[in-house]
Amino acid sequence: MEEDPALRLRVFDLNCWAIRYLSKQRQERIRLIGDRLCREGFDLVLLQEIWSERDYSDLKAKLGGCCPFSHYFRSGLCVFSKFPILDTLLYQYSLNGYPYMLQHGDWFCGKSVGLVVVRIAEITFNIYVTHLHAEYSREKDAYLPHRVVQAWELAQFIRHTAKAADVVLLGGDLNMHPGDLGIRLLRGWTGLHDAFMEAKHFEGCKDGCTLIPNNCFTVKSELQPFPLGIRIDYILYKAVSSFTVKCEELRTTTGTVPGVDIPYSDHEAVMAMLCIQRRGQTAGATIGTAMPALVEVLSEARTEVCMGLLAARRQRYSSGRMAVLAMLLLLLQVVGVLGVLGGLAAGKPFPTLSFSLLAFLALAILLLAAGLHLFHSIEVKMLQGTKEQMEMAMRGLQEQPLHRH
Amino acid sequence: MEEDPALRLRVFDLNCWAIRYLSKQRQERIRLIGDRLCREGFDLVLLQEIWSERDYSDLKAKLGGCCPFSHYFRSGLCVFSKFPILDTLLYQYSLNGYPYMLQHGDWFCGKSVGLVVVRIAEITFNIYVTHLHAEYSREKDAYLPHRVVQAWELAQFIRHTAKAADVVLLGGDLNMHPGDLGIRLLRGWTGLHDAFMEAKHFEGCKDGCTLIPNNCFTVKSELQPFPLGIRIDYILYKAVSSFTVKCEELRTTTGTVPGVDIPYSDHEAVMAMLCIQRRGQTAGATIGTAMPALVEVLSEARTEVCMGLLAARRQRYSSGRMAVLAMLLLLLQVVGVLGVLGGLAAGKPFPTLSFSLLAFLALAILLLAAGLHLFHSIEVKMLQGTKEQMEMAMRGLQEQPLHRH
Repeated sequence: MEEDPALRLRVFDLNCWAIRYLSKQRQERIRLIGDRLCREGFDLVLLQEIWSERDYSDLKAKLGGCCPFSHYFRSGLCVFSKFPILDTLLYQYSLNGYPYMLQHGDWFCGKSVGLVVVRIAEITFNIYVTHLHAEYSREKDAYLPHRVVQAWELAQFIRHTAKAADVVLLGGDLNMHPGDLGIRLLRGWTGLHDAFMEAKHFEGCKDGCTLIPNNCFTVKSELQPFPLGIRIDYILYKAVSSFTVKCEELRTTTGTVPGVDIPYSDHEAVMAMLCIQRRGQTAGATIGTAMPALVEVLSEARTEVCMGLLAARRQRYSSGRMAVLAMLLLLLQVVGVLGVLGGLAAGKPFPTLSFSLLAFLALAILLLAAGLHLFHSIEVKMLQGTKEQMEMAMRGLQEQPLHRH
Repeated sequence: MEEDPALRLRVFDLNCWAIRYLSKQRQERIRLIGDRLCREGFDLVLLQEIWSERDYSDLKAKLGGCCPFSHYFRSGLCVFSKFPILDTLLYQYSLNGYPYMLQHGDWFCGKSVGLVVVRIAEITFNIYVTHLHAEYSREKDAYLPHRVVQAWELAQFIRHTAKAADVVLLGGDLNMHPGDLGIRLLRGWTGLHDAFMEAKHFEGCKDGCTLIPNNCFTVKSELQPFPLGIRIDYILYKAVSSFTVKCEELRTTTGTVPGVDIPYSDHEAVMAMLCIQRRGQTAGATIGTAMPALVEVLSEARTEVCMGLLAARRQRYSSGRMAVLAMLLLLLQVVGVLGVLGGLAAGKPFPTLSFSLLAFLALAILLLAAGLHLFHSIEVKMLQGTKEQMEMAMRGLQEQPLHRH
């Protein structure tokens, strides 16, 4: 059988770190990113942390010539494409950190995954762009259960929505090192390949790192245990029907932009050249990891979710107790006031100021604790649901070890 | 070509109104629902508003014999099935009312759609169960834009996840009358058929109503303009590949349970007998509404989303202004205190109590208004995103009027 000519696709992925008022030299960097994209003419551009609509519009205006089609997901994610975008869908992760962790702020960003459907040369591409919850401490990572839930939901979302796609592409800041549980879960459960590991030719930071000490915007203390840096931004792919995808070349930026004294972002960009070819014969759907290994990854993920469940239940309990205590204090004060009004304490001076301050305090604690209790109750529900989904997946794998062939 | 024997499937759908502490005679009604399900032996049972895990466990224990497989989505949704559940996915709608509308409470429930994949007789079923935001006033429906967004997201979620399914089934409380915009949008954009409209044989409340004055738990004043009641609970279906689905019989309950003096819920149950048959030849994918009519529905939905956008922008602005005013008041107080400490007001009595009360009030307003501002900012983003998705869909329909044939 004669082979069709190969389709070559150039993909660009970058966490742009474009947060108004917070990110340094934002506008200049957006300008530099736009210039680079214009100059190199990528087919697909997947960006994260474009938080301001203005930055998106600026990029859109600049890229009108080379990537006339685009979609802004309004959760910091956007996609520019040389080919028409046929359809889009946004999926919000059910868990994403805690609203009271103001210094981390992930909760407010509403982490999610965006799907864009593009058809190139009669091949249907499902293109996903995402950004998972950050890891603030590797030793004591309080967000690990949430990130594992996100990796699971990402994998499930891809599996369920990509059934009619020929090629699946995922780009984004996954906030996980290459061997981390969430990456193994995602790759194992979807069958996605890591462009860096598969690339025939690589050029860029050692080990493909995308958070490097050499970048003037990275926090050096966080990277101290990793003198080369870490790889947390990925381009992943797979072909689901009668196609093969190969990564011919992978590049990363390496800190400072040539000719300028700043980098594009605090992350390095990942750039892949993918080669897509129609296969002689249709192969069955494959999953990425051998069955026993996949069951093991699922079981490890389930354990992590269970740990999160324990912590969430503890927090639900303690916030509930706090609310009850605040309510008791308020009741006590009401009794006190009634006592005074009833003349029981007549003659004694009544400390109005401290009394009303205390009442306000009790009320504030009551509202806060009730809100927290509600929040952690939802967290418990979501973790419990994920745990059961994972158990269902494990049962499915164990009962029908051959149902995918 | 010889036809395969038809598969007959009996489906049950009910909004169970099982909210702890709030719903009347909850436990008794759950017991009655379980009894009925056991007696009639449905193949698929789709329930909404099972808010307590305990009620789910009770039903699960009772239905172990006839529907041994089940999944609880922890947003009040659950599915019981005679056949093994292979996979599940939960999608949360991006908008769902307002947290400060405490008396309505929809926001806290986290409305969503659950997907369950089941394989029966080598036919893959994608089964969806959902519950959309309630309509509290038909004349002045402040939640209409949110419900239209939910209907759109539901349709998009079904379209994207059902591409490999043979048969799609959707059951749930859509909180919309049969001719409402959201229903037309959902049916037009997915091609789903309404079991009530297609049923060869119908038995139950007139016009298939599921909220009827004859039910002792319904609020009579809300149903006054509709003496027969309203139909807001649906079973919808379609076959996406070489299958046909027909509704042979549709029934509803009619208020009070025979032999008992209460109904199962404040809603009536919908029960369908579906007949699924393999077709001689594969037909192309179809959409439910003719192209010009579909563009019109999309344009109507877009207008509704734009109205919501206007309202959300107004609320974002006024909450932002309130936050700024509260901050100014706090600043003024700080200046006042500094003045007193600096001896400017020496000799004059300082009203400590009212002063500190005012400060507390200003702080409380500041926090509240900032929270509201953030909430409405997210609302604006989501409405804006939906508007653009709808525009993309309309462009797609107008540019390629034949691309679906």
